[in-house]
Amino acid sequence: MIHLYYTPVACSMAPHIALEEAGADYQAIEVDVGAGENNKPEFLKINPKGLVPVLATEQGIITENPAILGYIAQRFPQAGLIPGNSAYGMAQVASFNAFLSSAVHVTLRQLSRPRLFADGEAAHAALRAKVPEMLTKYFGLIEDQFSDGREWIHGDSYSASDPYLFVYTSYLFWDGDRADPNAFPRTLAHRERVLRRPATERALAQEGIGDPASYAQPDLPPMQD
Amino acid sequence: MIHLYYTPVACSMAPHIALEEAGADYQAIEVDVGAGENNKPEFLKINPKGLVPVLATEQGIITENPAILGYIAQRFPQAGLIPGNSAYGMAQVASFNAFLSSAVHVTLRQLSRPRLFADGEAAHAALRAKVPEMLTKYFGLIEDQFSDGREWIHGDSYSASDPYLFVYTSYLFWDGDRADPNAFPRTLAHRERVLRRPATERALAQEGIGDPASYAQPDLPPMQD
Repeated sequence: MIHLYYTPVACSMAPHIALEEAGADYQAIEVDVGAGENNKPEFLKINPKGLVPVLATEQGIITENPAILGYIAQRFPQAGLIPGNSAYGMAQVASFNAFLSSAVHVTLRQLSRPRLFADGEAAHAALRAKVPEMLTKYFGLIEDQFSDGREWIHGDSYSASDPYLFVYTSYLFWDGDRADPNAFPRTLAHRERVLRRPATERALAQEGIGDPASYAQPDLPPMQD
Repeated sequence: MIHLYYTPVACSMAPHIALEEAGADYQAIEVDVGAGENNKPEFLKINPKGLVPVLATEQGIITENPAILGYIAQRFPQAGLIPGNSAYGMAQVASFNAFLSSAVHVTLRQLSRPRLFADGEAAHAALRAKVPEMLTKYFGLIEDQFSDGREWIHGDSYSASDPYLFVYTSYLFWDGDRADPNAFPRTLAHRERVLRRPATERALAQEGIGDPASYAQPDLPPMQD
């Protein structure tokens, strides 16, 4: 059986939703980042990077969201999470998810963990101050991708990129100087579509978010990114 | 036919090598980043992010190294670039490449383009000063992965992760305060193994690097990352 190590509300929400979309037989295991569980020896044996999500499969561990989402999509082909079920479709999912991971998430990390980029309060303030500009640029590129009226980020069918985008669009609403979510109406409409899917509701409920709409302003521990 | 948009010595070297490993029928198109070609309208139509590498396939454009490398591996299965030719092997490649892209490359970008993270000379100096610590941490995790004596990063067979790691290990030798390459002897030995492969020699030669050993100290335009 598959096990997903997750922290409520963190970016591990994306594979949590994807597993629900896939109808996978899996168990979700909470990692209490607030209590530092991710940096304890037992967890570091599972993921030496000390990060969630981790997907534990029968063959071994998978880390990094783009890899986990791609694996879920390939392992459960009947869920149709790869556009056209082709190598090119898989590459489109991998490309978009790499962009979210290496550009959008990295920028958000400048808010939550600036000490990974530089030392000193002045540098941390400068890192935080840059976030709105970079998020506005990145979400502008995403918004452009919806300009042909598509419902999902890769076209007419929901894919393994959609729950991952949903997570980061939701983060725009969180505290801190980010980017104005209302500047990206098509991306916000996408977020609403993901939010209304039964798989999303189940994943949110399992992570203790009873009212799905509250995912944008959760009353929960700070995200771990 | 496949077209690879590349800049000499940049991280587009990784898919360049992979295409050679795969025996692909492709054409390499140089993008002169020094002359700003990557930010001209013609190129932005191909990749709105203004970055190399780009792989142009018969079905469309693929951006982001982890996606391009995964696509080459899936499209040319006879090259054996996916460990075990399985969904799990594909996920291992995707995971390692996501780590290189979102952690190692992002850290190197703090040296070459600190203005993407923060404004001001003091902040840029702080971003640069942090690089050795973070690279040492990340290459330490990579070095650990070789501790069982494996030749390639995922085990006994060369995969679509190896040329990508080769690029970043080589960057440790470049100018600027990075990390001491000699602290990672197994990773350096891996770099030598990749360097000696005929596919690597062909890709380096096509990018104008006549003596493969000089890739570590190239007399070429600054890398674009």
